[in-house]
Amino acid sequence: MLNFQYFMPTRVIFGPDTLKQLGDTPHLPRGNKAMVVIGESGVMVKQGYLATVQSQLAKQDVQTIVFDKIRPNPESDIVDEAAAICRENGVNFIVGLGGGSTIDSAKSIALMATNDGKYWDYMQSGSGGGLEPNKDALPIVAIPTTAGTGTEADPWTVISKSGTNEKIGWGNDSTFPALSIVDPSLMLSVPPKQTAYTGMDAFFHATEAYLATCRQPASDMLALEAVHLIAHTLPQAVANGDNLEARTIMAWACTAAGLCESYSSCISQHSLEHALSAFHPDLPHGAGLVLISRAYFGFLAACGEERLEDLALAMGDTLAESIDEEVSGVAFLDALDKLITDIGLADEKLSDYGVTREEIPTLAENALTTMGALFDITPVQMSIEDVIAIFEAAYE
Amino acid sequence: MLNFQYFMPTRVIFGPDTLKQLGDTPHLPRGNKAMVVIGESGVMVKQGYLATVQSQLAKQDVQTIVFDKIRPNPESDIVDEAAAICRENGVNFIVGLGGGSTIDSAKSIALMATNDGKYWDYMQSGSGGGLEPNKDALPIVAIPTTAGTGTEADPWTVISKSGTNEKIGWGNDSTFPALSIVDPSLMLSVPPKQTAYTGMDAFFHATEAYLATCRQPASDMLALEAVHLIAHTLPQAVANGDNLEARTIMAWACTAAGLCESYSSCISQHSLEHALSAFHPDLPHGAGLVLISRAYFGFLAACGEERLEDLALAMGDTLAESIDEEVSGVAFLDALDKLITDIGLADEKLSDYGVTREEIPTLAENALTTMGALFDITPVQMSIEDVIAIFEAAYE
Ligand SMILES: [Fe+2]
Ligand SMILES: [Fe+2]
Repeated sequence: MLNFQYFMPTRVIFGPDTLKQLGDTPHLPRGNKAMVVIGESGVMVKQGYLATVQSQLAKQDVQTIVFDKIRPNPESDIVDEAAAICRENGVNFIVGLGGGSTIDSAKSIALMATNDGKYWDYMQSGSGGGLEPNKDALPIVAIPTTAGTGTEADPWTVISKSGTNEKIGWGNDSTFPALSIVDPSLMLSVPPKQTAYTGMDAFFHATEAYLATCRQPASDMLALEAVHLIAHTLPQAVANGDNLEARTIMAWACTAAGLCESYSSCISQHSLEHALSAFHPDLPHGAGLVLISRAYFGFLAACGEERLEDLALAMGDTLAESIDEEVSGVAFLDALDKLITDIGLADEKLSDYGVTREEIPTLAENALTTMGALFDITPVQMSIEDVIAIFEAAYE
Repeated sequence: MLNFQYFMPTRVIFGPDTLKQLGDTPHLPRGNKAMVVIGESGVMVKQGYLATVQSQLAKQDVQTIVFDKIRPNPESDIVDEAAAICRENGVNFIVGLGGGSTIDSAKSIALMATNDGKYWDYMQSGSGGGLEPNKDALPIVAIPTTAGTGTEADPWTVISKSGTNEKIGWGNDSTFPALSIVDPSLMLSVPPKQTAYTGMDAFFHATEAYLATCRQPASDMLALEAVHLIAHTLPQAVANGDNLEARTIMAWACTAAGLCESYSSCISQHSLEHALSAFHPDLPHGAGLVLISRAYFGFLAACGEERLEDLALAMGDTLAESIDEEVSGVAFLDALDKLITDIGLADEKLSDYGVTREEIPTLAENALTTMGALFDITPVQMSIEDVIAIFEAAYE
């Protein structure tokens, strides 16, 4: 019988040019000192997004401290460093402006701005200290500039332990952003490859949430919507990045997929990918997912996972067109192949990113150790041998 | 271009027997003194629900004060009376246990437990005082025992001014319940007529939210889901009240329709109904909606409102069956007629509840005065003459 918890307390303000509402919104967290977290690449400065955020916050008499050291696959030492600055300066809330790495870092900084010790003390798996935080994180404002992670609509943050190959997800009720501004016009300048990678990350959030055993009716709806929209719109957003309509649809699809992360969950494909990008920090998360996806979903299809058919239908051009065709897990694999080809990622290989066949057992071990919980909500049981076989198949 | 705000911070715990989780949930509001608000009918006591709530709260060391004076179409004096008791006793949070009237009252009591003056001082239309509350409401726990109002998933409360014919909706961010427990097993004993009335209230929340000009993608999905489920399940729940599966589907559909009240809104059909039940407090809200619905949606269909077609499709047995038929607003009216007949309400008339043709101009005036804002988000413009004409058509 239907049984679930529905909870996603973030206020999401969505739409082109909504960043300009930041200066007037009554929904900003309290306090007049904010840390704005951005990436080290300088893109937020060059695009003028940082200046806009600062001037909008100034309209609300909020002073800002900029922390600009976030790299892709962010590490725990940086979180601790930024959190110390927050404590020293009496920062009231944290603004994450950028892609998933930046906003995830902002969440983790918010947590450590109020709690003692080191970030890794609070991780619950792998070499994490297993502590529970005593205090809520500082309030978080998320302003994504890519359409992908969905972190604007979930409590999750993924950080790697500095100097190691451990990449662990974490979140609690206080790391849901208090406010997220999803402004697709900020996404117009994302390059094609990154558009493809981040869009596919969202695609897999939706597909995985649809398959997870902890799914609920609302996540099912949002997942099918996101899968449908991404399958039809991502190729356009990749081909023509300044198409605001395509960017807007993708932004909503990715936020919808983020909602799926809150109402349902990722499954073990994300555990496998986190192992890959923990050992190969230059591998973009979305690229890693694409590279293992055919092998991973092929395994699920071989196990007879019937809900892959619904996903195949959602990817079809219209429901009416596909409804009389025989659909199955194979239809989903075909549609996935086509999508990967359409967005120009068909030729990528794991070895392009330095992954070797020899490390596969280590990757499998890492996937089960650091993100093992996701295997419990995967609809099919997977042994370590199965995980190795999936990596092997992905490698070929 | 797509532009919306997505916000519904309530934690909804859904499923048969979830009331038994109240004693263990870590998500209860803080404090050890709660007011439990119930109806004056005694049903909550006889069914044992009150005792269950009290013993579950006692497991968390929460003492309770029971306020048992809520009637259908609750009035503002009762809100003020209960709020005074909360202030005198240092109550920390409010539990609403019962139907929509009870939970709405709990919300309004929670507001007045922290704010000065009288409840009506804060109403923003009609004879309301137009004040803004200085403080957030006390945290609210909603435990619905009927499937209908959706108040467990929205901030809204509808209260009548004592001694008058004014019935006004109100809500702010602090009147979203902090926690809602939607346990369909509490709904097994709802009598058939009340099941039909409350189920149709939810049906119209979904249909109206689908038509409202402030709709968004998530409300569209939830609305079509709710419309589909209610059209197919409400007749079963009416015919066989102890069918837990039907009750569970209806409970989810009604919560989904409540979510629509948060992500989108009702439209002016609710303004018309509030006028009716303000002047005729014995008219159940859902019955009032059913009685005006054919005239109201007939008016929208005559104006060419195309989204009625989607609602007609959602009410069809399968999408495939209807997809080649010609659908239109008329198809929705036919499906609505069939549903009203299937749940045994086809023979009800406005005059059964003492409504007279002579009062129609007064009702129309009241609808525009007390709930005029809903006309602004109705997809079709309506003059007072149009509202009169709808009431006239409903009366025939
Ligand atoms: Fe991801
Ligand atoms: Fe209603």
